[in-house]
Amino acid sequence: MPNIITLSHGSGGKMTSDLIRSTFAHFFYNPALNVFGDSAILNAGSSRLAFTTDSYVIDPIFFPGGNIGKLAICGTINDLAVAGAIPHYISAAFIIEEGFPLDQLKQIAKSMAETASQAGVLIVTGDTKVVKHGQCDKIFINTSGIGFLANKNEHISSGMKICIGDQILLNGFVGDHEICILAARENLQFEKPFESDVAPLNTMIKALLDADIEVKFMRDITRGGLATICAELTENKAFGIAIEEQLLPVREETKGICELYGFDPLYLANEGKIVAVISRETAGKAIEIMKKFSTGKDAVIIGEITDTYPGKSVMKTITGGLRIIDRLSGMQLPRIC
Amino acid sequence: MPNIITLSHGSGGKMTSDLIRSTFAHFFYNPALNVFGDSAILNAGSSRLAFTTDSYVIDPIFFPGGNIGKLAICGTINDLAVAGAIPHYISAAFIIEEGFPLDQLKQIAKSMAETASQAGVLIVTGDTKVVKHGQCDKIFINTSGIGFLANKNEHISSGMKICIGDQILLNGFVGDHEICILAARENLQFEKPFESDVAPLNTMIKALLDADIEVKFMRDITRGGLATICAELTENKAFGIAIEEQLLPVREETKGICELYGFDPLYLANEGKIVAVISRETAGKAIEIMKKFSTGKDAVIIGEITDTYPGKSVMKTITGGLRIIDRLSGMQLPRIC
Repeated sequence: MPNIITLSHGSGGKMTSDLIRSTFAHFFYNPALNVFGDSAILNAGSSRLAFTTDSYVIDPIFFPGGNIGKLAICGTINDLAVAGAIPHYISAAFIIEEGFPLDQLKQIAKSMAETASQAGVLIVTGDTKVVKHGQCDKIFINTSGIGFLANKNEHISSGMKICIGDQILLNGFVGDHEICILAARENLQFEKPFESDVAPLNTMIKALLDADIEVKFMRDITRGGLATICAELTENKAFGIAIEEQLLPVREETKGICELYGFDPLYLANEGKIVAVISRETAGKAIEIMKKFSTGKDAVIIGEITDTYPGKSVMKTITGGLRIIDRLSGMQLPRIC
Repeated sequence: MPNIITLSHGSGGKMTSDLIRSTFAHFFYNPALNVFGDSAILNAGSSRLAFTTDSYVIDPIFFPGGNIGKLAICGTINDLAVAGAIPHYISAAFIIEEGFPLDQLKQIAKSMAETASQAGVLIVTGDTKVVKHGQCDKIFINTSGIGFLANKNEHISSGMKICIGDQILLNGFVGDHEICILAARENLQFEKPFESDVAPLNTMIKALLDADIEVKFMRDITRGGLATICAELTENKAFGIAIEEQLLPVREETKGICELYGFDPLYLANEGKIVAVISRETAGKAIEIMKKFSTGKDAVIIGEITDTYPGKSVMKTITGGLRIIDRLSGMQLPRIC
């Protein structure tokens, strides 16, 4: 590992997990520490809590489909929801650069309030810091969140109940967020408007859990992309993941941009996409339920848990080949979230 | 209000509360929102939770007595403890500038772990973002925290049980943190080493609560200083606060620096000091208990709740005058925490 922090340490891929292992997990170790999941699962009297935190440093702060504030609220809601929890309370902490326009701050706060209200969560506490011009880039937001967890959903964040034959589900096209941010930065034009997928997914996820779908694992696909989640999930396990490339929903525009920039759709960041591992018996019903929501209307099964490639994630390519899926190494696009 | 964010918006004083009122409280309003207190008090099944968040942007990141990591852990612990809660779980989110030395990051993480362990809290979840060189100043840390609250302590953060005659207690000298940071920035030398007071206060506070001291209100004295807390506490109330200047513990070094820089000890930031409002009957015993702890060895009564100045906080000066204590307006020292 280099002796300075590089952008790759923030990629959400291999360098990030190496840094977390060697530094944060090393010093902070305790049985409740959740190193790689989205939320820590904690005791609170007779209740079980999910607790999560994320800082948002996205550039640009306003983009088609959202802004840094909406992103922060959605990200925290989704981290709680994919742990099987019902998101309830959110904190919002702002680091603002001196000279930042007040009307933009109001626009961001308004959009946070609207997103929270839409998702049924309360912003309950906050913090405001201001740093001198040039000491941060416009505005950074941290949101932390608390959700409540039914006992029957406690296994979801660890994936400990995953079995051979379970199906791998996606709720729609991969990469909308990353392509949107890239396009905004590079001033790329599309024929049809291309928006970030940023959205709260808690309502769709609650519908799955309430319908007694056998959800074995969920994770929201942000930095590091689908590939990094699959690689982390199968590492040192007796099972593997096999994904079919032809089933993976990738928009034509996304394919085009990926070819142009040398990006791989498997590693693209999303802000309204989850991967779910669901029992073969209930996977079809899960797709039906997801399709009832705007956030899940393009939901598909993309592969399954297999014993053919234990400890590995592989993709069966359209041309009939087999490709090992590894964590993101290096960096695709910095400051994506 | 100006149409851009200024450093004074981050002072913790009047401009900060105006910004919070007009922007965050305006949009985020809900009954659980805690606008000016240290923690929101929330329902969690049969339990009551305290939930708090703070971002730390201090400059310099290493200073006599601590560093940004220790500061973050102590700040969050203290925000929970002064709400009458027992701090349990902490999240840690890092925004790091590209090129930041890894050994400094490890030193910060180690010190966070040590402080958490000393205070009996667990760091359970985290986040790591890296931004390009020049897009943040070295490292910013957000810590959010969850504590549990006994029913009998629910009134503490609101101060709703404050009565005429209650005593105002301080656990030691004001200003150690701000003077230490100022000295570090300006390369000031003292005869005796001068350290920040940064420390977790939860053990001392728990001893007060366990001893059935009638604690009516507590707040940790950070940005904005003692003055801002007193002014906020008495605003629109039927009671006032009267503080005796001669009882206020101010070190000689602090007095000297304040004269030199035109600072007022009442507005100095601290990171290991609380103001507590305690019934006249139990205030003496509270001082005895506080003095048993290194964090409370210089504890004193500095004044009382009075009906003579309703809605106001005043200081009886050493020269016999009477001075109205108002919120900090403008900025003493940016990036103090």
